[in-house]
Amino acid sequence: MSQTTQRQETDGRITEEQIAAGNRAYELDREHVFHSWSAQDQISPMTVLDAEGSWIWDGEGNKILDLASQLIFTNLGHKHPKVIEAIKEQAEKLCTVAPQHANDARSEAARLIVERLAGDINHVFFTNGGADANEHAVRMARLHTGRHKVLSAYRAYHGGTHLAINLTGDPRRFASDKASDGVVHFMPAYTYRSYFGAEDDKQEAERAFNHLRDVVMLEGADQVAAIVLEAIPGTAGIYLPPPGYLESVQQLCDEHGIVLIFDEVMAGFGRAGKWFAHQHFNVEPDIVTFAKGVNSGYVPMGGVAMDDAIYATFAERVYPGGLTYSGHPLAAAAAVAAINAMDDEGVIDHAQRLGAEVIGPRLEELKDRHPSVGDVRGVGAFWAIELVQDRETREPIAPYGQTAPVMNEIMAECRRRGALPFMNMNRLHICPPLNISEEDVLFGLDVVDEALRLADDVVERK
Amino acid sequence: MSQTTQRQETDGRITEEQIAAGNRAYELDREHVFHSWSAQDQISPMTVLDAEGSWIWDGEGNKILDLASQLIFTNLGHKHPKVIEAIKEQAEKLCTVAPQHANDARSEAARLIVERLAGDINHVFFTNGGADANEHAVRMARLHTGRHKVLSAYRAYHGGTHLAINLTGDPRRFASDKASDGVVHFMPAYTYRSYFGAEDDKQEAERAFNHLRDVVMLEGADQVAAIVLEAIPGTAGIYLPPPGYLESVQQLCDEHGIVLIFDEVMAGFGRAGKWFAHQHFNVEPDIVTFAKGVNSGYVPMGGVAMDDAIYATFAERVYPGGLTYSGHPLAAAAAVAAINAMDDEGVIDHAQRLGAEVIGPRLEELKDRHPSVGDVRGVGAFWAIELVQDRETREPIAPYGQTAPVMNEIMAECRRRGALPFMNMNRLHICPPLNISEEDVLFGLDVVDEALRLADDVVERK
Repeated sequence: MSQTTQRQETDGRITEEQIAAGNRAYELDREHVFHSWSAQDQISPMTVLDAEGSWIWDGEGNKILDLASQLIFTNLGHKHPKVIEAIKEQAEKLCTVAPQHANDARSEAARLIVERLAGDINHVFFTNGGADANEHAVRMARLHTGRHKVLSAYRAYHGGTHLAINLTGDPRRFASDKASDGVVHFMPAYTYRSYFGAEDDKQEAERAFNHLRDVVMLEGADQVAAIVLEAIPGTAGIYLPPPGYLESVQQLCDEHGIVLIFDEVMAGFGRAGKWFAHQHFNVEPDIVTFAKGVNSGYVPMGGVAMDDAIYATFAERVYPGGLTYSGHPLAAAAAVAAINAMDDEGVIDHAQRLGAEVIGPRLEELKDRHPSVGDVRGVGAFWAIELVQDRETREPIAPYGQTAPVMNEIMAECRRRGALPFMNMNRLHICPPLNISEEDVLFGLDVVDEALRLADDVVERK
Repeated sequence: MSQTTQRQETDGRITEEQIAAGNRAYELDREHVFHSWSAQDQISPMTVLDAEGSWIWDGEGNKILDLASQLIFTNLGHKHPKVIEAIKEQAEKLCTVAPQHANDARSEAARLIVERLAGDINHVFFTNGGADANEHAVRMARLHTGRHKVLSAYRAYHGGTHLAINLTGDPRRFASDKASDGVVHFMPAYTYRSYFGAEDDKQEAERAFNHLRDVVMLEGADQVAAIVLEAIPGTAGIYLPPPGYLESVQQLCDEHGIVLIFDEVMAGFGRAGKWFAHQHFNVEPDIVTFAKGVNSGYVPMGGVAMDDAIYATFAERVYPGGLTYSGHPLAAAAAVAAINAMDDEGVIDHAQRLGAEVIGPRLEELKDRHPSVGDVRGVGAFWAIELVQDRETREPIAPYGQTAPVMNEIMAECRRRGALPFMNMNRLHICPPLNISEEDVLFGLDVVDEALRLADDVVERK
């Protein structure tokens, strides 16, 4: 058992004035701010007064380790000096231009992004975030193929706008998918909860692929414009595709002229210990969508990186899509600085090593000791702990699409002890900034370790 | 006839180094950047090396007056010192937090926005831009009413994502509206091109409203979730609703429990000489969407401002929508600074006066002298010049949904003479920054005046 963690006391960083300003911010928030994915009168947002690196300070001045990188996007942590400096410089130089013009920050960001992707992905269409990136990727695929149907996986998330939420395979879709708009969902490859009776990754890769191949056949292979997949599904559970699965999917796409779109909004830009998560596999998608880690969310930005075949479709034909802030210079300057900082500081290798040598082993150890832990899995700085009522049946500790009191209690206990993971249904996700220190991440995992006793109690009471 | 404008020479501001960097930016743009609404190999983007106030410097160092506020969003012009300072300060303080937290910049931006709207609009859901603002507004209306159909006008623009482009009533929709997703289009009130044989605004207001009332009846009033209207349609032609029209629409909505959504993405935040364009009329919408002028596009931001009834629907029930960058602190800090600067510097009154006393009269004069000018109209810093082949038939000089060689020639001539208006189909739009000087806007209108000879030639050749 690791050292006992103590409640994080205020460390004197936050002044009384900041706390008063935070109280005012909270009051105004409750009066005037409408929050995402929430029943507005049932929430009590945590005020964030300050943040640096992997740490944030809440409304009372408590220092808390951010194991969620906010919403899994501050890949470089808070207040990275090079990114801040780039934003300040670009703000002085030129905050914004219209998308139809050429701009040096935008050009350089595009160059750096395609340089990190396989050979024939050479162009970037910039958007404001991941949702519109996926919307435009689907539009490109539909116009490129002349087909309408799009296949996407259950247990996946692709964004909050209408088409993106329809692509999504999680309960957030339910309220908005009255018109499915040509989206057909299939079962993903998810070995721990195999839909195909698979006992290992090899079986799962084969059976899940056979299922997808048959869905394509049953929907009409020549009707399918695109298959959209998170390279590693994120919010839905950080379940890595079993080796061989994505390779087979690419062959299927190639065979039928289907556009393969990898959503790398969460998994990309180092989160999975490589520039892009799909680079763990021997696969080359036609389109890669991104956001979040591209500039650690310091300025809103997303995008669609496309191969030459997709580009060629719109070389002499108008692409019927666009947006005012496409390739926004301030966002692009932040992306250039963030990508260069990742390179210069070896951030991605650090994340890869942290996953392999620190987080992974420590989580395996937690699994050994906590009966409530059904599965731990991940790579890089991208990990899930799946909590179950029973290791044999694998029944989740919270039902699909819901939470459970114990999950909220675990989160409260983690916060009390000074570290905040990400929570979704019956899972805790450990997704700290990629450049977190070994010492800090071990502190955070100690906190989680102790909070998991609450889940063990549930299992033991049964 | 006004003074003859001269081609803008380089004024020495731009260095050889900047020009070389711009050339490199252009090359990389052509290699790696995919542009909005374009056939990629048919465009030759103008490089913007620098910008200040209402002026930009192109890739050769030429100084050009920006009569389009980029894409009608730099309402405060470029490099407003207070907004830049606010961005730099916030970048140091805290670039970003997750949307579920409370943050002072976000809270204050929400407060300032609702303070400028009618009494019962008290909450803001922040998005990344106008398209997702409209997508979420429709979702809120559908869930609020339990109905699915949405009515929006032809000759309108509401954004580039799937649902937003379906709402849109211009040709950019055609490629993407295979599934109309419950959107029904109606004919707008547009006196100059009345669909109803109206000879004046009074007739148009009455007849266009009767048409909409009957569309609602024919679609089933209890099936209609929302009517979405640009308060003043922007890209589609800056045609002001005739007095009484919007008021009648509101009554219709109230009568049938239909949510009235005003899209103020382009017209809001001072563009029309008031905080919001609908404030020219005696009308109170349920939802107002915004973007662009909220922070002059210095950092991407949009939003949905909603009244208490819409808010109440999601007080105890989860709103099924969200996005990572909702209420982004850097964007919010820019909004706070931009709104306060507009107040402190009397920018909106200046725009109103400029429209009434300078732009409007000068455009009327142009209309008197140029046979190619069929109509001029607008308010504040929001004006359209409609070019026709024949003033009697009002036949546009470019067909609907297309351009014409003469339009491109006019734009080239304007650029050569040092001022760039916005062009759409057969129209030039004069939408400079709200704080442009009288002298500068008159220079720009002189440029347009001279370029219009090219259109007159077309008319005279007929």
